[in-house]
Amino acid sequence: MNIDFTYQNPTRIHFGKSAMQYLPEELALYGKNVLLLYGRNSIKASGLYDAVMSDLQKAGKKVVELAGIKSNPTYAQVLQGAQLVREHQVDLILAVGGGSVIDCAKGISASAYCKQDPWTLYWEQQAPLANPVVPIGTILTMTGTASEMNGGSVITNDDKKLKLGRVFPLETMAPKFSILNPEFTYTVPKYQMISGIFDIFSHLMEQYFGGNDDCVSDYLLEGDMLALISAARAALKDPHDYEARSNIMWCATMGLNKILAVSKEQDWEVHMIEHQLGAYTDCAHGIGLAIISVPYYRAIYKYGLHRFVRYAKNIWHVNPEGKSDEQVALEGIDCLSKFIQELGIPQTLREVGATEEMLPLIAESTIKGGGYHVVTTEEVLEILKACF
Amino acid sequence: MNIDFTYQNPTRIHFGKSAMQYLPEELALYGKNVLLLYGRNSIKASGLYDAVMSDLQKAGKKVVELAGIKSNPTYAQVLQGAQLVREHQVDLILAVGGGSVIDCAKGISASAYCKQDPWTLYWEQQAPLANPVVPIGTILTMTGTASEMNGGSVITNDDKKLKLGRVFPLETMAPKFSILNPEFTYTVPKYQMISGIFDIFSHLMEQYFGGNDDCVSDYLLEGDMLALISAARAALKDPHDYEARSNIMWCATMGLNKILAVSKEQDWEVHMIEHQLGAYTDCAHGIGLAIISVPYYRAIYKYGLHRFVRYAKNIWHVNPEGKSDEQVALEGIDCLSKFIQELGIPQTLREVGATEEMLPLIAESTIKGGGYHVVTTEEVLEILKACF
Repeated sequence: MNIDFTYQNPTRIHFGKSAMQYLPEELALYGKNVLLLYGRNSIKASGLYDAVMSDLQKAGKKVVELAGIKSNPTYAQVLQGAQLVREHQVDLILAVGGGSVIDCAKGISASAYCKQDPWTLYWEQQAPLANPVVPIGTILTMTGTASEMNGGSVITNDDKKLKLGRVFPLETMAPKFSILNPEFTYTVPKYQMISGIFDIFSHLMEQYFGGNDDCVSDYLLEGDMLALISAARAALKDPHDYEARSNIMWCATMGLNKILAVSKEQDWEVHMIEHQLGAYTDCAHGIGLAIISVPYYRAIYKYGLHRFVRYAKNIWHVNPEGKSDEQVALEGIDCLSKFIQELGIPQTLREVGATEEMLPLIAESTIKGGGYHVVTTEEVLEILKACF
Repeated sequence: MNIDFTYQNPTRIHFGKSAMQYLPEELALYGKNVLLLYGRNSIKASGLYDAVMSDLQKAGKKVVELAGIKSNPTYAQVLQGAQLVREHQVDLILAVGGGSVIDCAKGISASAYCKQDPWTLYWEQQAPLANPVVPIGTILTMTGTASEMNGGSVITNDDKKLKLGRVFPLETMAPKFSILNPEFTYTVPKYQMISGIFDIFSHLMEQYFGGNDDCVSDYLLEGDMLALISAARAALKDPHDYEARSNIMWCATMGLNKILAVSKEQDWEVHMIEHQLGAYTDCAHGIGLAIISVPYYRAIYKYGLHRFVRYAKNIWHVNPEGKSDEQVALEGIDCLSKFIQELGIPQTLREVGATEEMLPLIAESTIKGGGYHVVTTEEVLEILKACF
């Protein structure tokens, strides 16, 4: 634990089949004006919308709705929500949905009382969040981003063709409460479930692939990866396996509530590349991450060889006997590739709507960073070509 | 994750060599009357006392001190502190020390404004904490109990010969802030360091040995155990190895801040037996746990065989080839025994001051519980005899 840190996470999690029973006592903690945020009509089809509205009405809330939040929530929607907050003096933003809806809620919360253009202030410049924010509660229906227990908000600016993630401080912006009933994720289509699974796996790898020390967080990240692999395999067999779906849900929350990232050097470059893939195509986030991961790690493993050897042995149980470290590390990445195939994820960018013309544009606009190695535009382009 | 749960942990952790720099901003959040709680004079010898007092004075605090908190903090000290809180209208209890000092702070916080006898209310009856409490901040100098980030308070009643643990709700009683500088643990004598290490390891095993499901928490507990084993070995070689000591410190906090225990069936019987050993002897807590663990797990492993097989394979890398599950499980417990020897911990109760006459008294007074199996007085006595 060589890197000093401060950690506090205020989110109260209610987890399980009975989690919704806590909604009334949470609602009672806030004023009467609620902005209800959700995506498509699936929460109406599932009956969740009615259940939430019933609790809101019993609590005497005045509800204003903003529906249709996109799977890559847009800055235009953030501004629309911010205006509703000001007009209706909203006391609580209740986000019902997946990471997109919650990310949008954070954007709205940060922007509503911001006196400058929030886009340039928060998403481009990462300025401190100085203005008042609106408390957020969430009811999660799709798992992956851990937005239910962190301060992250990824927003797409259609005008600027930019998808940028802002990590607001946990203390200020993490939801006050989050209701996690794994059964609510049953209605997510299988392709989206798989996308979510790989998003989680990628978060864990991206926090893991950095540092040369023997850090507790690495052992815990390994534990979460192993739990996720086991649960993913069970959920693939039976998407209504409660144990599997509940494990996936908690792997996700633990995977990015930042408690497993303390004192960690990290490498978020796969996310950086995928965000720009997302700006140019409609590719599901986790699917894009999976396609990019294999060529990315093949390109950079040699800079952090010891860590990729550890990953191969501890996550994929690669037997190192009679093999060089290079061979062990590459065999680990092969196992990752096989796992992606096992999940039924496409192997090429072509299959998710990218064209050859897009590749240099994506490579150029990607924010360059890395863990063991900082990539160049040329290297990103090579990585994209390798999975095109 | 088959068991529903609610989790929130309000403690703000400042971790690392620079952690003390946050004390002034934390102190600024509370009123002017501070009760400073500590144990022996070691914090004066190390200079920590002067540093803390300097920050308190700069912050304009009026300080009342209660020193000499025992390693098994007593109910008499709790009442003494509670009276100081009332007399001086204390706004913050600042606990500087290890788990004992922090446990005592929680006892004082709960008792100060309790209108009935707090002992019978909290430690015997586990009644809800209805009265106001006093906020607690901590500066940790010895690691093990995770009292710096949980609601636990173990108090010894000398009159009643009872050492009872109360788990207060995290939201109410977990410290508001905790300062964790691994260097502060350097002054702890090696024997106490080792006792702390095994206390942590026992917490992890006791949360792990329960349940028949495939729970995320189990994978994370395994990660924390593996991290601790590695760090313990490094710290044994060089107690001033910062990486090792910082890893041990964080293994401890994560090991019992309850985030790795969500949705878990558990087995705290080793702690129950040790608490009564502690009521009859001056045995260091972690040392007592180590002595009791081996015969305890040998007595109960067959009731949760699958879990002990998993433990042997995942924690101690026991090769199962050509062996029965029974053999694998027992080999795992043998590895635990060897690890205890490696730590240099005594193997018998005799060596820590127990007499043969005490054994039936300890067995009789132990609270009986368990995970895979609930023990009887006779079984506890057999366990004690096996390590006498």
